[in-house]
Parts: sequence; C-alpha cells; structure tokens
Amino acid sequence: MPSYQAPLRDMRFVMDEMFDYPAHYAALPNGEDASPDVVSAILEEGARFARDVLLPLNQSGDEEGCLLEGGEVKAPKGFKEAYQQYVEGGWPSLAADPEQGGQGLPPSLAMMLSEMICATNLAWGMYPGLSHGAADALRHHGTDEQKAAYLTKLVEGVWTGTMCLTEPHCGTDLGLIKTRAVPADGDAYAITGTKIFISAGDHNLAENIVHLALAKLPDAPEGSKGISLFVVPKFLPNAEGNPGERNGVTCGSLEHKMGIHGNATCVMNFDDAIGYLVGAPNKGLACMFTMMNAARLGVGIQGLGLIEASFQNSLSYARDRLQMRGLSGKQAPEKPADPIIVHPDVRRMLLTQKAFAEGGRMLVLYTAQMLDLVEHGQPGEERDRAETLLGLLTPIVKAFLTEVGFESTNEGVQIYGGHGFIKEWGMEQLVRDARITRLYEGTTGIQALDLLGRKVLMSQGESLQVFTKEIHKFCKAEADNPALKEFIEPLAKLNTEWGELTMGVGMKAMQDREEVGAASVDYLMYAGYVTLAYLFARAAKQASGSLEGDDKAFYAAKLNTARFYYQRLLPRTKAHAQMIQSGASSLMAISSEDFGLGFEI
Amino acid sequence: MPSYQAPLRDMRFVMDEMFDYPAHYAALPNGEDASPDVVSAILEEGARFARDVLLPLNQSGDEEGCLLEGGEVKAPKGFKEAYQQYVEGGWPSLAADPEQGGQGLPPSLAMMLSEMICATNLAWGMYPGLSHGAADALRHHGTDEQKAAYLTKLVEGVWTGTMCLTEPHCGTDLGLIKTRAVPADGDAYAITGTKIFISAGDHNLAENIVHLALAKLPDAPEGSKGISLFVVPKFLPNAEGNPGERNGVTCGSLEHKMGIHGNATCVMNFDDAIGYLVGAPNKGLACMFTMMNAARLGVGIQGLGLIEASFQNSLSYARDRLQMRGLSGKQAPEKPADPIIVHPDVRRMLLTQKAFAEGGRMLVLYTAQMLDLVEHGQPGEERDRAETLLGLLTPIVKAFLTEVGFESTNEGVQIYGGHGFIKEWGMEQLVRDARITRLYEGTTGIQALDLLGRKVLMSQGESLQVFTKEIHKFCKAEADNPALKEFIEPLAKLNTEWGELTMGVGMKAMQDREEVGAASVDYLMYAGYVTLAYLFARAAKQASGSLEGDDKAFYAAKLNTARFYYQRLLPRTKAHAQMIQSGASSLMAISSEDFGLGFEI
Repeated sequence: MPSYQAPLRDMRFVMDEMFDYPAHYAALPNGEDASPDVVSAILEEGARFARDVLLPLNQSGDEEGCLLEGGEVKAPKGFKEAYQQYVEGGWPSLAADPEQGGQGLPPSLAMMLSEMICATNLAWGMYPGLSHGAADALRHHGTDEQKAAYLTKLVEGVWTGTMCLTEPHCGTDLGLIKTRAVPADGDAYAITGTKIFISAGDHNLAENIVHLALAKLPDAPEGSKGISLFVVPKFLPNAEGNPGERNGVTCGSLEHKMGIHGNATCVMNFDDAIGYLVGAPNKGLACMFTMMNAARLGVGIQGLGLIEASFQNSLSYARDRLQMRGLSGKQAPEKPADPIIVHPDVRRMLLTQKAFAEGGRMLVLYTAQMLDLVEHGQPGEERDRAETLLGLLTPIVKAFLTEVGFESTNEGVQIYGGHGFIKEWGMEQLVRDARITRLYEGTTGIQALDLLGRKVLMSQGESLQVFTKEIHKFCKAEADNPALKEFIEPLAKLNTEWGELTMGVGMKAMQDREEVGAASVDYLMYAGYVTLAYLFARAAKQASGSLEGDDKAFYAAKLNTARFYYQRLLPRTKAHAQMIQSGASSLMAISSEDFGLGFEI
Repeated sequence: MPSYQAPLRDMRFVMDEMFDYPAHYAALPNGEDASPDVVSAILEEGARFARDVLLPLNQSGDEEGCLLEGGEVKAPKGFKEAYQQYVEGGWPSLAADPEQGGQGLPPSLAMMLSEMICATNLAWGMYPGLSHGAADALRHHGTDEQKAAYLTKLVEGVWTGTMCLTEPHCGTDLGLIKTRAVPADGDAYAITGTKIFISAGDHNLAENIVHLALAKLPDAPEGSKGISLFVVPKFLPNAEGNPGERNGVTCGSLEHKMGIHGNATCVMNFDDAIGYLVGAPNKGLACMFTMMNAARLGVGIQGLGLIEASFQNSLSYARDRLQMRGLSGKQAPEKPADPIIVHPDVRRMLLTQKAFAEGGRMLVLYTAQMLDLVEHGQPGEERDRAETLLGLLTPIVKAFLTEVGFESTNEGVQIYGGHGFIKEWGMEQLVRDARITRLYEGTTGIQALDLLGRKVLMSQGESLQVFTKEIHKFCKAEADNPALKEFIEPLAKLNTEWGELTMGVGMKAMQDREEVGAASVDYLMYAGYVTLAYLFARAAKQASGSLEGDDKAFYAAKLNTARFYYQRLLPRTKAHAQMIQSGASSLMAISSEDFGLGFEI
C-alpha cells in the first residue's frame, strides 16, 4: 500500500519562512485564533487523520466503487465511518463563519488540510469537498431563511452539498440547460430535468444532501442570461429543521469512470422536486461562479495533493529498487545492483515531481493569502489588489496544477516501471484519479480562456500588471545579489517577455477573436511556468540565507530544487512562447470535412 | 461504441506517393508477390477484419478481462473465435519465410496491418503479436530441429509465443535473473524460476504456447554475460509434432492492471519445466535482442494505432457536440450552439492527434523500408545503410510514438470533456491501454539510453550522420523551392543543431558518463521531433505538387497538417535543446536522503 506523510516541514517553510503567515494571520480581523501553535496543532492532527483514516481506504475504495441499490447510493466500505470521524473532529467547520457555527479560521489553513486529504483519498475528499461550494453560494446569495435552514447543517457537516450544473447535452455551455423550474406553492418551485456528472450526488455519508441546481424559469431569456440557481434538498427540512419528507430528486444511475471510483458520480433526476430560488431570478450564473471559483481552487489543490502522493512513493521505490549500475560506476557495491535513484533520468523524474509539488504548494499558499484577504480583509486597496490577483491566479492554480499533476503522477508510474501499471502498487490509481482534474470545474481550455480572455485582455492587461510589477520589484531588489543571479536574470527576462507576448496576442485579437483561443492554452502554461519561477526565486532567496544553520540540508535541497526547476522545467516556456506567437491560421485552415480525408471514404 | 476506418488513403499516400513502395517492393527478391493489387487487397481485407471482428470486442474485452480457472487462462468472450478467423485468414504467416510455410511478403506490409489491429483492439493484438518475436528468435538462433518443431506452428498461428524475461526483482537489469536451467536428459534442461509480466503467458486462443525464456546455466558467469535463452513449450510436442505431455510451466496468477485488460499478463511458474537451449550457452542476451527489436517496433506501432483510433473518434465527437458559439461569431446559426470543432483550441488538440498519426505513419513506413531491406535485401552498401538507420530509428519509433501516443489519446479524452472520463465512450480505455506502451519492451528511459548511448555515441556519431546527411541532401535539393521555404529553412537549422547538440553531449560525456543519462530522454524526444519534421517536409513537397489535381482537398489538408506541425509542435525542440544542454549537475546534486526532507521526519 502506498504510504504518506504530510509534508509539514515544507508547508512550514512556505508559510512561515517565505510568506510570513504568522504576521498575515495576525493582521486578519479573525486571525488571532490562528496562532502559530493552533496552526501547528491543526496541521499535525490533519496529517494524522489523512494518513491513518483516509489513506487505508483509498485503494479499497477504488476497487470497490459505489453501489446504487433500491434508489440509494452506498459509498465504499469505511467511507461513512471516516466521514463521521471527520465531522466529530470538527473539520468541516474549520474555516466557516462563526455566525453559522464555524470556527472562523482563515481559508488558507483549510487549503493545506485539503492538500493532505487529496493526497491520501481524492474520491473520499470529494464528499465533503463539494459542500464548500454549496455553502459559499448560500452564504453569499441565500436568504436568511435559507441560511438558517441549510448553512449550519452544511458547516457542521451533518449534511453535504452538491453542484448540479451539467446536463447530457451541455457542460461548458450552461446557457443550453433544459431543466425547468415552475412556480409552485408559496416561494417554492417545482424543478424537473436531468443533471449528469453530479459528484457526491447521492451517498450514505450524511443524513441529508443539499443540491444547488441550475434551472430555467418559464419566462427566462435564452442562453446564459436566463439561468437561475435553486436549493433543492434531498429531504425537505421539517419544522425542527431535520430531514423530513423525501424530495423528488433521485439518483438515476452511477457513471462508470476511469478513476475516482470511490466517489459517486450520479445522474440526478429532478422530478417536480421542490426547490427555492437562491439569489435573483435569471442571475444564476453569477451565483454559480461563487461556487465555481472555490471549486476551481479546490481542484488545483487536488492536483497538488496527487503530485505529493506520487512523489513520496516514487522516492521510496527509487531508493529500494535495485537495477543496473550507475553510469559512472558502482554506487552500492555491496548490493547486486544500485538503487535506481542513482540514475540521472530517474532523478530527473523524481525532481520533476518534487519541483511541481513544492512549486505547486508555493502557488497555492501564495494564492491562499489573497483568498484570506478577500474573505476576511478590510475593504481597501490591499483587498482590491488581492481580489485582482486571486482572479488572475485561480485559472492558473486550477489548470496548471492539474496539467502538471497528471504529468507528475505519470512520472510516478514511469519510475515504478512495469510495476507502475499494476494496480497493487497504487501508482496507476493516482493517474486515473488525476485525469478528471483536467476536466471538471472547467477544462484546461476553459481555464485558459478565462485567464487570457476574461482576466488579462478584458482588463487591458491591468490585472496581469499587478502581478508582473510585483515580480519586477522583486527582480530589481535582488538584482545585485550574486547568490540569486542564476534565478533573477532569467526571471526578469521572462517577466518582460510575458508582457510582450500578452501585448502581441491582444493586438492580433483586435483583428481576429480566434487568436485568443489559439493562444490560450499555451499562454496559460507559459503563465504557470513563469509564476512558479517567481516563487522558486523567492524560495531560493530564503534558502540561500539559511545554508549555514541547523537545518542546512533542507535549505540546500530547496536551492537545488529551484536550480533544477530553472534548468530543466522552465525551458518549456521557450516552446510555449513560440506557439503563442504562431497565431491561429494553422489551426483554422482545414475545414471540418477535410479533417477526415485520410480515412473517410 | 467507438468507430474505426483504416486510414487507407493516408497509407497509400505515404507508401505510394512519398516512399514509392511499388518500386521498393519490386526491387526486393521476394517482392514480386507484393504487387500493388495484392497490397491493396491485403490492406482492404485487413481493414475489414480489424473493424468488423476486432473492434466490437475491444470494450467488452476491457470490461470482462481474463480469468484464471483451474490453472488455465480464459481470454474474454469472442477473443478465441476472432483468433480462429485470423488464423483461417492466413494473417499470421503473411510476412513469414516460405520455408516455414510463410507467404514471404515484406514485413512492412504486416506493419500496416498491425497498425489496424492496434487501433481496434490492442489487448487482442498482443496474443498474435508476441509470436513474431518468438518466431524471430527461433528463426535466427534455433536449430533445424527446433525450427521444425516450433516455427511452422508459430507461423501458421496454431501455436502462439511469449517472451519470458522479467522476474519480480528485475526487468531492465536482466543480468540479475534467478531462473535456473539444469542439464537434464539428452539436450533438455530443467528450468525453474518465476517470471512476471508475461503477456499472453497463458490463454485459450491456441492449442499450444511456445515460451522463449531466459535462464542461467549452473556455471554461468555473473550478470548479463551469463544468461541463456531456452524454448519451453506449454505442451511438449509428441512424435507427430502435436501438443503432447503438459510441461511444468503454469500461470500462477494474473496481474490486475491499469489497461490492456483483455490480454493475460501472467506470473509464470517454471517448475522443472523442460526446455531446450536456443543459440549458444550464455549468449541469451543477443538472442533476446532479436526478439526485442521486433517487439520494440511493434510497440511503436501500438502507439500509432492508438493515436489514429483516438483521432477518428475525437473528430466525430467534435463535429457533433454543440457547445458555445465561435469566438468570431455563429458558425451554425441554425443550431442551438456551434459544433466544438469551430473552437481553435479543440482544433489544436485534433490537429495534434492528426499530425502525430500521420507523422507516426510516415516514420513507421520509412523505418519499415529499412526493415524490408535488412530482412530481404541483397548484402551490400544499401543493406548496411538500412541496418544502421533501422538501429537508429528503432528506439525513436518505440519511445517517441508511445510518448506522443499517450499525449494524443489524452487529447482525445480532453476533446470529449467530462464524457472522456466515462468508460462508455471508449476514450479513456485508449489512454489506459496506451499507458503500458511507454513501459514495456524497455521504458522510454531505456530507449533513450539505447539511442544516445549505444547507437549515436558508441558509433562516434556515425550512425546519426547517415540520417542527418540524408536530411541535409533533401534540404539542399529543395533550398530554392519557394513552396517549401517555410519547412526547409527551419529543418536545415534543426538538422545542424542536432549534430551540434550530439557533439556537445559527447564531449561532456567524456568527462562524466552521467551526462548521457541526464540528456538522454530530452535527446530522444528532440530526435523524434526533428525526424518527423523531415518527414513532414517530404510530405509537404509531395502534397504541394498535387494541389491542382482531382484530390486537391486531401493534399491541401496534408500541407496544412505539415504547417501545423512546424508551427505548433516543432517548437518543443527549443525546450528539449536547452534541457539537453543544461547538463547533469542539477540532477545529481541532492543526496538520496535529502530528497525527502520536506516530509520525512
């Protein structure tokens, strides 16, 4: 069975040493509770929960899958009990509003727990994970009555939530949904339609499920301007607020999927189900984005967790597996062969995982500070800036970390060789589980359009400049630091190039909108690599100042990882830059029919 | 269910128009039988067999898997019947020596059939696929008696073959094997040991199975110089040459794997099994490479087949699925949304698949001509040259086509969006099946060492020069062709750079052998991209001369695909070139212990 230790030392490096989280928390209005001791205790306790409770259920959950029986879904063995422990431990309410019974801790802290959960059992983590988005939607857009009815239960974790958006004929293009909401008694609506790909849509972990569903009102305008959001509980709350009458929303079937077998991906049938409007009529899309942004960060963290899980096990295998001698001579002459960690190409793969895990963690914790400020900071310039950066970085966190997450979990399989393909070792499960992260909550292509189209170009590049100016300032401040020369020089060049590439696409896009779509995914990947380069340069700065202290091996390894990142991963920007500049013409030239001339008769 | 049409038009373009296969076949001593009519008939019949017989069994085989019952393995439903049809159709003997009952057609033709088989049912294709390697080993190294006993049956297909190399503790490093061969009666040996990952190790498709197994003689030297090859039949042939007594080689268990579920991956227990030495004692490694080289080309073709399968279905989905409007306006105003093929990023993914399918096919058919000459050509300069090129290109075919095969099948999933993750659509199976191709018959890392270390550097770059000179000649000849300027200029530069990069690594490797391993995988990928660039330039030359004819849409699409390849895939060489040059130091600096300092306490 794969093993896992939460990377607490690395988390503390990023939180305490790089980003001064103690001061950051202290400055938040609700930050006094997040004292260093509390943070430590929570991370350590979370690490134990993930390792001791969730990890042992990961492979069995994958093998067993979910079961639909008599209209009710059963999660794999042990999932329910683990969830009870999770609720009893008070984990669901960690970062929730004290008004709704939450502990009011900063969301960044919950994100580090989320990394541990995703690293040990992604399928399980999606049961509580979806609740956050539902709670966010209700907190921001729900009436006081709705909050009272649903929010406390979601925060406590005794009920879970879902996001019911996708239908058989539409996922990305939600303007096409066919689910209908017809006014019924009082403020209720009768909701009818079919939703698919509903994660945690039905299960036996919690006593009730709160569906947040998109539907169209009878007089709704066409397209995405005519969709509304409804709260549709599995059981209607009775007078005491407990689950009462069964509502007309049921799981029609479970999808058979490549991975995340332990999570129930449901077809949900709404059959005159009673629902209540959340937010204004026809303004469901904005409410949905409230859920979606939280979910997108969450999916990026899934990518991060899977990278760490794959890295840790690959490292352990690479140290144990004896195969061939080192190219420059025997490294372990007392053994029949050398451990494969001596081979440079195995090290290249391990370091790729390590760099993406550590770089991804920096990216998540950098972004998490922005989220803390947006959620809890005082209105003003700092919070506005945080909001801009959060908007800019969310699609990068989501898409970049899931793309490199898929790559890194595949390196894990590759390091194990043929054994990586065998289920028993657990490495191929990480790949299968990682595969969905590039798809759900908006594919990489959708994130890329959000980044380049919505965030960067629609703000005339202003949102990007908030970030590139910060990088520029850092480069300037460190320009004369000889220890950082190998990082600052290429970073400064890339930072300038990023602006130029953006300008170039923007100019072309004024002539032809297709240029945005043509450049978008390469642009997002480019942005991800440069962002991590900035963060690794900051890590290198921090580490290079501690090379003589007690923990010098840690800092030396950190510096080496930064060096590896600059030498062996960052060059990918060269390819992406050229592809961004290559334009749309080679993509748009062939007609739909002519695509198939090699095989169609 | 996924659909499939063999890409006959594209095959004919590459064979007839680009590489003049009719003349090539006519010049082979055994080529007269491979007349254009015969070739057409075989390809068309093979296309039907793949589409009508194999494709319908692909998803059911994946779902059902293999069964070990009472010591015997059963392949999924329908596999046995399909195999009978295959044998009755005379397919196994197509390219085999007439002396052993073969039809003596050139191996290149069998390779195009192989593409179709791999595209429609990879797991099934591995049952007959492994026989080729076993037959090759016996043909080259077996005694006349062994040939008489086993080869004719393998050629006919009534028996199948395996390669029993890997053991639990060693795959790459076969010098470590523990299986022992002790002299027994007459020329027999008693073989004892455990082999794992034996594809098609046991099954019910054929009446007997011929294992080619590596083992050590009692007095064998240590390491890879002490391994010998043995033929070990499941049933010992009786006096009539039919399956007689059951031999002591049995399937101990079946592996549970990520993909290729329809193929039995067996743990094979040899328990005093009777075997006969093939080739000289302790010279098993050389015999093994005979099997291995055939198998490596075969695995590259698996990559190609999977790309084509994924491309065809992605194209059909992208034409049908309606989602969002084109960025520059409605493309199908009569429909509720535009088909996703209008979106530039979807086109980028489709064209990536298309370019790798067509580029991969050119690479395979270019290499296949070399194989034809090596197998059947007259001794002399041309055959020597073909042998050099075959050696150089084999690791590229194997590793490059499986790496881009994995990427391309993943693009298939991505084009399908969330549906790509659902088993029903068949796209995720292609990914799971493709995943093994990067591992077996030598991982990408091993292929890369073979290319850079063994083939290029050990020949002092001479083998590479045979190829780069050909590219240089082509560039020179077309230097003044304005229609090809966009291809020839970058190609000529890359060709020069390839030589320089090789020289650079070679120089560094003289100081430090680790430099070879550090550069190897990037070097292989670089080599693959430049090789495909050469082939696409030749395709563009061919196509640009036919833009006014009957089939002009085909040629225009071909030219556009070449252009896409140069603009959107070839820039990856920039990243690889820089990574090749970055050297070994950033890989070797961290000690094995210090790798884990972020999480180990």
